[in-house]
This record gives sequence, structure tokens and C-alpha cells, in this order.
Amino acid sequence: MAINVVIAGPRGKMGSEAVKMVEKETEFRLVACIDRKHGGKTLQEVVPHFSIDVPIYEDAETCFNENNEVDVLVDLTVPEAGYQHTKIALAHHVRPVVGTTGFSELQIEELSSISNSQNVGCLIAPNFAIGAVLMMKFAKMAATYFPDVDIIEKHHDNKLDAPSGTAIKTAELIRETRTAKKQGHPNEKETLPGARGADIDGIKIHSVRLPGLVAHQEVIFGSDGQTLTIKHDSMDRASFMEGVKLGINKVMEERRLIYGLENIL
Amino acid sequence: MAINVVIAGPRGKMGSEAVKMVEKETEFRLVACIDRKHGGKTLQEVVPHFSIDVPIYEDAETCFNENNEVDVLVDLTVPEAGYQHTKIALAHHVRPVVGTTGFSELQIEELSSISNSQNVGCLIAPNFAIGAVLMMKFAKMAATYFPDVDIIEKHHDNKLDAPSGTAIKTAELIRETRTAKKQGHPNEKETLPGARGADIDGIKIHSVRLPGLVAHQEVIFGSDGQTLTIKHDSMDRASFMEGVKLGINKVMEERRLIYGLENIL
Amino acid sequence: MAINVVIAGPRGKMGSEAVKMVEKETEFRLVACIDRKHGGKTLQEVVPHFSIDVPIYEDAETCFNENNEVDVLVDLTVPEAGYQHTKIALAHHVRPVVGTTGFSELQIEELSSISNSQNVGCLIAPNFAIGAVLMMKFAKMAATYFPDVDIIEKHHDNKLDAPSGTAIKTAELIRETRTAKKQGHPNEKETLPGARGADIDGIKIHSVRLPGLVAHQEVIFGSDGQTLTIKHDSMDRASFMEGVKLGINKVMEERRLIYGLENIL
Amino acid sequence: MAINVVIAGPRGKMGSEAVKMVEKETEFRLVACIDRKHGGKTLQEVVPHFSIDVPIYEDAETCFNENNEVDVLVDLTVPEAGYQHTKIALAHHVRPVVGTTGFSELQIEELSSISNSQNVGCLIAPNFAIGAVLMMKFAKMAATYFPDVDIIEKHHDNKLDAPSGTAIKTAELIRETRTAKKQGHPNEKETLPGARGADIDGIKIHSVRLPGLVAHQEVIFGSDGQTLTIKHDSMDRASFMEGVKLGINKVMEERRLIYGLENIL
Repeated sequence: MAINVVIAGPRGKMGSEAVKMVEKETEFRLVACIDRKHGGKTLQEVVPHFSIDVPIYEDAETCFNENNEVDVLVDLTVPEAGYQHTKIALAHHVRPVVGTTGFSELQIEELSSISNSQNVGCLIAPNFAIGAVLMMKFAKMAATYFPDVDIIEKHHDNKLDAPSGTAIKTAELIRETRTAKKQGHPNEKETLPGARGADIDGIKIHSVRLPGLVAHQEVIFGSDGQTLTIKHDSMDRASFMEGVKLGINKVMEERRLIYGLENIL
Repeated sequence: MAINVVIAGPRGKMGSEAVKMVEKETEFRLVACIDRKHGGKTLQEVVPHFSIDVPIYEDAETCFNENNEVDVLVDLTVPEAGYQHTKIALAHHVRPVVGTTGFSELQIEELSSISNSQNVGCLIAPNFAIGAVLMMKFAKMAATYFPDVDIIEKHHDNKLDAPSGTAIKTAELIRETRTAKKQGHPNEKETLPGARGADIDGIKIHSVRLPGLVAHQEVIFGSDGQTLTIKHDSMDRASFMEGVKLGINKVMEERRLIYGLENIL
Repeated sequence: MAINVVIAGPRGKMGSEAVKMVEKETEFRLVACIDRKHGGKTLQEVVPHFSIDVPIYEDAETCFNENNEVDVLVDLTVPEAGYQHTKIALAHHVRPVVGTTGFSELQIEELSSISNSQNVGCLIAPNFAIGAVLMMKFAKMAATYFPDVDIIEKHHDNKLDAPSGTAIKTAELIRETRTAKKQGHPNEKETLPGARGADIDGIKIHSVRLPGLVAHQEVIFGSDGQTLTIKHDSMDRASFMEGVKLGINKVMEERRLIYGLENIL
Repeated sequence: MAINVVIAGPRGKMGSEAVKMVEKETEFRLVACIDRKHGGKTLQEVVPHFSIDVPIYEDAETCFNENNEVDVLVDLTVPEAGYQHTKIALAHHVRPVVGTTGFSELQIEELSSISNSQNVGCLIAPNFAIGAVLMMKFAKMAATYFPDVDIIEKHHDNKLDAPSGTAIKTAELIRETRTAKKQGHPNEKETLPGARGADIDGIKIHSVRLPGLVAHQEVIFGSDGQTLTIKHDSMDRASFMEGVKLGINKVMEERRLIYGLENIL
């Protein structure tokens, strides 16, 4: 039997990808959408190119009251709205799958205690790209055996910050397993500053910025006579939908809040 | 306290790397060597460039009788000798770490039952390259989420067989986790035969052979908008020693036979 | 002074990219468009999101009669229309830049003789991706010194043919410079058919097909102790516009027909 | 007919590779060696594992006097000796092929004027790795069309300096062709210093140092929707011999001094 889904934020970049994904997957059935505008209209009235038509609600409470067979809420809105939607969903025994980096620790704790006491599964994930999450997981595992590691991340040249958040996150995860060490030759010298990259506890990070690139990262481990490389290339937003799909399926089997896609992989 | 080690096959390609590794590591202490020749001589008499000198035995029984403080036997000889050495070592409560692909299933079962009944750890590994073993382990894990995968393996052009044993092994491991599927477009056509590579249950394998290459493999997983690549580059035999080192340490904590490095990673 | 451009096929995939490119580049000025439909309307009436508005003509003759300051025709239509447009442009001393693989040798010869006798530059290019064309050029040059070479091309899994046209073209170019040779070990054996890839005169081609890939090729040369790799990654159609831009500028300086972007690089 | 060769420095790392190369190539014939020691002995007396035996001279003058059929001197010694040998060789109409980075500009000018006035070919090359030299040549060519470029060089972690000499040389060559430009987003920010690498006139260089690596460099060019990568992997010293071989053959056809392998490719 299909899983009944409500999508919040169907006009956003991620949300519209989610609608397309649910349209394609026969195991899911879109029941309604939650949107901060267009309440009372239908999805196709607002976005004609979608092939499924469902009612739009501005109010989450009303949405779940009028559709009591909903299994999962996929929330791809902004933190403030997402937090409210999640609370309301849990109260209606609807399992939330939320893509956000913006919840505070306090909010997560609160949602976690609601989810646990209600026995309703809930997934909150800052990153839905399964490939990126697996890359980090494998990197953390490999660091036990290969303490020497450099990270190269490559992005289009309109990215403002270097290194990328994923590179920093990866280094932090590696740091949890590997024995701290200063890498490279003890007397190593940069004849040009910056050559050896940024440094997180001895782990070197190099940021390439070029037009034509999208979002790429490779983690290179070296030891005598061998290297092991884990590389993720992300070409477009569609890459997140595999993770949302997995999240919908997994949250159906859970009875508590899970933070981070890595914890269901 | 150092772990006392006996190395069988100290003049071979792998064995001589093992002697060099033990020379460098202060946690290990070389006690004696077993060799099919040169019994009664010492290691430096036979191989002057080694920096440690220990007696050479042709007979494993005598070796363990005369050196009863031995903790671990590292056997890098040939299957027939390795099998005998392993049995004798176990009888003396010496833990064997054996690098071989040549034991029969029957032999492994027999050694396993001796090891278990004696409560003496034993490690038999066809491949000691941690990097290669991790690559296979990660590939198997990733295949759950990414059923589409191609393997490219690259070796020097004096390799006789294609695909490589590691590539076949990797495909077989992936097959255990992923749902069977035919990859590529259903109407895909090879305008030149062989373009799409070899096929193991739908998994494609491509073998590159060129001078200048050593031993390389990459496993590429693809899904909508992203790829995940796991790559191992092996430059020389030294790469196996990290695995032997790990094996020596782990076998000290074990009380049964373990087959395959992957089972201690 | 800006170069005055007419674009034929402004609603097509390539043509609409060309309009966007001309919008951005201050050295070019869009004067008019040629389209098989919508004659008499303007560009923005037909495609509202373009920021430049110019008249649309269905008839090339009329277009060049009414706009006699046109310098260059960029034709990104279909072979039959493109051939007619090119002839008419040359007659009006307008320099054609044509992206097509579809002209017959006879047609190219005819256009070439018109172009030369009129002293009007003309560029016909089957491939406008500068990166791909440079990859082929470099590969051809490298093959003089490195006769051993494998080609790996990677495309999305909805591509029907394997190997790709670019891979075959690359092998054919390499063949022109390198001494013919059988690669790999003389006694090499495929234990699984297809492992060593497709073969063009001893050059091996491997075709990877996976979701998440776009269009990628690497040419790997090997010789004792070293490899040299030339790799092109194409993420989207925008990549062709750098070549169209270059073509517009170069055709202004030419007085004859040039076939292939490689001949102006 | 074979080319008669004298090798200076036959016991050195590069020189002994050169002896092995000449042993294998039937188009070359080793006539004598020049060494700062062992004059009067023969090559096999000093290095038993060589398969060719020739007299050793400490004095270059005597060597060329007693062997007047010598065609080419391959000098792989140190700058001071190499400079003397080259002068003496030219005086005897022997063509020098010299591998050194150590000659002063004045010395090169002097040798050049001798070579030219004598009509005797002479090749002086700081780098004999054809692959690396081609990489630099192609990078320089590509920079005309792709002004955005990052260089990643990867070496074993006992290398002292970063960036590598080859990376700096590559950036300097690219600078000669490309229009100067600041790369990346104008408001780009390093949240960790060094992330964006070293900078040579806007070209970014990233230095990876890990055990297991040998000597690798990739030059990545990016433009809208595409990247072009030129990569060289050097596994061992044997890679230089292809360049020495080419040098011997080319110097036979020359009548002047050539500096740099790139000028005969």
C-alpha cells in the first residue's frame, strides 16, 4: 500500500523536486501540500506543469485535520515554519521528514521528546545527499587505519566561503576516529603561503573554485605504497531526492526522532 | 611489552617486506625465521642488508620448541608449507597470521576447528592491502543505496588476465547487497563490441592495461544528479605491511580463526 | 565596435543558449533572428524571458536584405535549413558560424568554393565544445611520444550508443600519429568477454553508463613509470557557447571556409 | 646504424637508469663511461649487474681521444662536472645530452655559442619526463581559451618544499598566455586561512603531501559548463628515460644548442 505524503514548500527549489519525485514513485501518494500562500487553490492551479493535483493548505493544523490518512510530512520550507509544521505533524501522529540546517539544539531536543513520547518517527537531516553522507561515513571509518588524509573540495567560482561546510564536517568526523597528528614532513616549508591548504587539527583542506564545476569533494588517505580515495560529485539538486525517498520509507519504521541521514544508512 | 614474532619466508618478496616492517616497529620483536633453506645460519648471514639478526630454522617444530616465548607466526611462504607451519604453530599456542589464497576449504575448516578448540587466534588473509579491502567493504555498503555501478581497474600491461581478481571479488560482494538489475538504457547498443565492458550480473567491469600503471581500481556508483567513487591505488608491496601489522595486533586478542582481513576491519 | 549577429534557431536548445550568450557579451549585438515559425513577431513576444528584443524572420533572404549591417550568422538549426541559410548569408557577405554534423561532403565543398570565391569567412563545426576539441588535439599530439593509450568515456545511462562519437573520433585522430601497435601483454586473456573494451586499431575504448553522469572522457597514455591523462568533463550545453563566441570572433578575420573548431584553435 | 653513446655518471640514480635503457635499445651502443672514480676499470668490475661491459674514464678528454667514433654524450652527473664534460664533448664534435637544472645563464650562453659555431647539436634539459613537459605545454596552450585554472600537485610526505618546482613552472608558463585575472568570486572569503591555496598571479596552487603518493600533478581549467584537466602521474625514475632516448635521437639531427625538452617535442 502506498505511503500518503504531504509536502510543505512545493514551490521551492527542493520542494518542487520532492513533488516530482513523489509523482514518479508509485509507492508514494501525494495527498496535499502546505504553502505559506495559495491556500484554497490546488497545486496545478499554482504550478501548472506538475502532473498531480492536490489541495493546498496554508495552515498545517487544518491540513492534517482534513486529511487524517496522512503518513508522512516532507517539510522543505524554512526553519521557523518547519519547526511549527513538525510539532503539529507529530501531534497528529504524522511522521515528519525535515530538510533543514536551521533548528537550534533546544528545538531538536523538544521535538525529540515529543517524538519519543508519542512513539512517532521523525527524521531531521541537514543533508539529504546520500552520496555525500556515505562519503563522510566511509572517511570516518577509513581514518582508523589511515591517519594521513587530505581533503580536496571543488565548487563553482560563485561560492563565497572556503572551505565548504561539507569539507569542514568531514574533517571533524575524521578527527573523531584518527589519532591526532601533524602531517607532512616535520621540516616542510611553504615557499608560497597557502600551498598546503587550510588545517583542521593537521588535516589539510584544499578548495578549488572554477566555473564549470558544480559541487565535488574527494578525501584522499595515504599510507606506505597505497592511497584510498572517496569522492562525491554532485551535479544537481535531484541528488537529494534519493535521500528524501529513503527518509520517507525509514521514518515509517521508526518510533523516535533521528537527527542526520547518516543514522539511517 | 613487545609482541614476539617469527617470520616464515624471510627471503621472499612479501616476507622480506615483513622483516623490514618488524625491524622498524618497536612494538614487535623478531625472534627467529623459518626458511626452506639455510637452517642453522642466521638471517644476516643469508641477507646481509637486514639490520636484525636471528637464527634460521628449516623445521617449524624445532623453531617453536627452542623459542617458547613466540607470540605470532607471520607466514608468507607457499600454500603447502604455510598449511604445515600453521598447524604446528597452533599446536604450540603460537598465533598464525598467514597471507595466502591457496588453502582449500577443507584445510581452512580443519585449521579453524584446531584454532577454536585450542582457543588460539589465527588470521588467514588472501589480501593484506587494507586499502583494497576497505574499498570492497565500502562498495558493498554503498550498493544498498546505489544499485548502478561500474568498476574500472587499471594495471600494468604485463598483467595476463582481465578483469583482475579484485574487480571480480568486488562485483561479487556488490551483488550480495544490491537488487539485481540490468544497467544502462534498455535499448543500448554496442557499435563496437566490448565497449560496455565485462558483465557480472549487470555490473560492468572495464580493464585498462598500460605501461606506467601499477595496480588501481575505482568503483563508481551513480544515481540521479550524483556519483560516488571509491578508488584504491597501490604503488608497491609495502602497502601490504599495514595489513600484516594490524593482523599481528588483532590476532593477539582473538581465540578463533578469522578468514579475510575485512573481518577484523 | 560590436559585431552584429543574427541567430537562426533561437528557440532550440543550442540556439537559446546562443541568445543568452549574445545578451551577456557586450562585444556582440543581436540584430535579428531567423526562425521557421513566428515571422513578423519579435523575439520577446515568442520567448518572454529573453532580455533583448529583435524582429523574427522566417525568410533568410528578407532578413539579410532588411538588415544590411549584419556581420555574422550563427546557425543552430537543422542541416537542411542550415545549408540554405549558409548559402544565402554568404551571398550577402554575412559570415556564417554553423553548428552541425549533418552536411554532406558535397555540400561542404560547394559552400567552401562560394566562401573562397567571395572572400567571406565561414566556420562549420560539428562540435563547439572547446574543451573536447582541445582534448582531441592534445591526445593526437601526445600519441607521437606515447603509443600506448586507453580511452574511457562516461555518459548518463540514457545514451543509446557505445562508444560515444567523441571517443571514436579521438581514437581515429590518435591513429593518425601513433605507430600502429597491439597493446597489452601478447598473451593477455579476457576471462570475461568485453573486459578489455572496444578496439580501434589496438586503441582500447571503455564506455561507462550511469545515472548522475553527464558527458565525460579521459584519454590515458602510459609509458615506463608514468601516465599522462587528458580529461574533459561537460556539465551542460553552456559549454558550447565559449566555442561559438570564439567562432564569431575568428570568422570575422577569415576569408575562406574552415571546417572544424580544431582548425581555429 | 647504431648511435654510439658515452654515459657520464653511470653509478648515479639517473645514470644507472640510462645504462639500463641503452642496454635494452638496439639503436644505441654504449662505448664507454665517464666516472669521477674507477678510471681504468670496466663498468662490470664496478657494477656487476650491468650486462654491457665498457671501459671507464675519469678524464673526458682522454675518453673522447681514445674513442673517436662517439656520437653522443649522455651526462647525468653534477653541474660542475657536467659543464666541463659538455665543453670537451663539443670540442670533439660529440653531441651532449645533459640532464641538469644547475647551469648558470652565462654557462648556457657560452655552451650555446660553442655549439652553434661548431655546428654540433647539444641538448640541455632540466626535466626529461616527457609526460610532465607535455602537461606544461598543453596547459600553456589551453590557457588561451580557458583563463580560469587551478593546479593540484601531490607528492609523498617527505618532500620538503611546497609548491613543487613543476607546479610553479606550470603557473609561470600559463601566465605567459592567459590574460591576467583574479579568480574566484570577488567577495570570496577564506574562513580557514590557506583553503584557497598558494597564488601566482591569480593562479591557485594546492599541494597535497601524503605517504603512498609519488609525484603527481593535475592542471584543471574551468569555463561555463565544462572543465578540462591535464594530469601527469610519475611512478618512478624510469619515466625520464623516454625523454633521454628522444634527446639522443633528436640531438643527432641538430646543429645548435637547445634548452628544454619542450623545444624538441
